[in-house]
Amino acid sequence: MNFLLASTSTLFGGNYLEYIKNEIAYLFEGLDEIIFIPYARASGLSHEEYTAKAQKFFAELGISARGLHEFDKPAEALNSAQGYFTGGGNTFLLVKTMHEHGLMEVLKQNIRSGKAYLGASAGSNLAGVSMKTTNDMPIVYPPSFDCMGIIPYNLNPHYLDPNPELKHNGETRETRIKEFLTQNDTTVIGLREGNWLRQRGESLTVEGPHTTRIFEKNKPPYEIVSGTRL
Amino acid sequence: MNFLLASTSTLFGGNYLEYIKNEIAYLFEGLDEIIFIPYARASGLSHEEYTAKAQKFFAELGISARGLHEFDKPAEALNSAQGYFTGGGNTFLLVKTMHEHGLMEVLKQNIRSGKAYLGASAGSNLAGVSMKTTNDMPIVYPPSFDCMGIIPYNLNPHYLDPNPELKHNGETRETRIKEFLTQNDTTVIGLREGNWLRQRGESLTVEGPHTTRIFEKNKPPYEIVSGTRL
Repeated sequence: MNFLLASTSTLFGGNYLEYIKNEIAYLFEGLDEIIFIPYARASGLSHEEYTAKAQKFFAELGISARGLHEFDKPAEALNSAQGYFTGGGNTFLLVKTMHEHGLMEVLKQNIRSGKAYLGASAGSNLAGVSMKTTNDMPIVYPPSFDCMGIIPYNLNPHYLDPNPELKHNGETRETRIKEFLTQNDTTVIGLREGNWLRQRGESLTVEGPHTTRIFEKNKPPYEIVSGTRL
Repeated sequence: MNFLLASTSTLFGGNYLEYIKNEIAYLFEGLDEIIFIPYARASGLSHEEYTAKAQKFFAELGISARGLHEFDKPAEALNSAQGYFTGGGNTFLLVKTMHEHGLMEVLKQNIRSGKAYLGASAGSNLAGVSMKTTNDMPIVYPPSFDCMGIIPYNLNPHYLDPNPELKHNGETRETRIKEFLTQNDTTVIGLREGNWLRQRGESLTVEGPHTTRIFEKNKPPYEIVSGTRL
């Protein structure tokens, strides 16, 4: 398989996908068109507005991006395409729309066959076993929390360390993930902003400037360094 | 109706329910036993551990608290009781358990009949129209996101203002609630830690040391002061 799962689409103070532009160019090398999946609707953007944002970025790479919402038969569009990008936003909305259109398994089989896939944030959650470790608000009710499972893990994008100065009593990210592990067995990858997962052939590695926090059932969480093979 | 919905059970640096102890004593005035609903399992506590924590607090008020998990017939236990407290933790776990035991409607009818109810955090979400504005992680899949709807609003407990110093690109609470309003019409009450909602008879007011942020569809968010009647 050939995919890249990013923690975030944008770094603080940066431009859209800028920090990972070279990686994306390499991921989609040789392609002149991909499909953009806008269903997560970042910040409530319409499918059209969100697709225009992705198109602007990919135009700089000489790649045209077509929004999946434009197709009457989205499953056929996925089967015909050579590469995919799922943008961030609300994971509940993304997963609900994918299931309702019957696309989760279709996209999975295409990625399994070797076609290139880029996910950012919610789009990275889609690659995990389930969406049960998203940070997003459950603004809509999906028919299932199951995702593609092209990695045997769950992701927590935008992973954030506890802030000892914050006088707030809401649960930390770590507490929430530990609660997940009281109910589930799937290992969780806490992916800090700026980091990504990269699968090339048989090799799945964690990449980027920070260490990555791993949460396994019945073990204290631990850190792995960039380049570690999972 | 007679209920109190708190943003949090504990303030930073404080003890469990300490900041609202007098209000709770007044809410449950005249009662010597209530039922504690431990299903949200704060920080992964077992039902037994969590109930012991609530019992310790209520003992100081001369009230005994029995865990709902102790009853073979929880619906009958709710119907026989005179007051209720639902503790915080994971809202998905709480709502799933309530629906699976068929208790959402039973509890609602008892509260509607005038019996006293205390909710904290996840337990406050239970009083809203749905759990679609919780901050919690979807660690389990509930059969529905519907809640009791004893108030015609949704709550966002632990409401947190954006931190302009945070170099993080995850969505702010405000962005998430605005995304909710692209998909739903229910007004959302952003309840800061230390604040609570109080219903006595016909009057529903917002109380506590901070202002409260209200999110209505197609309107800019706005603040209301303590004592405002909703």
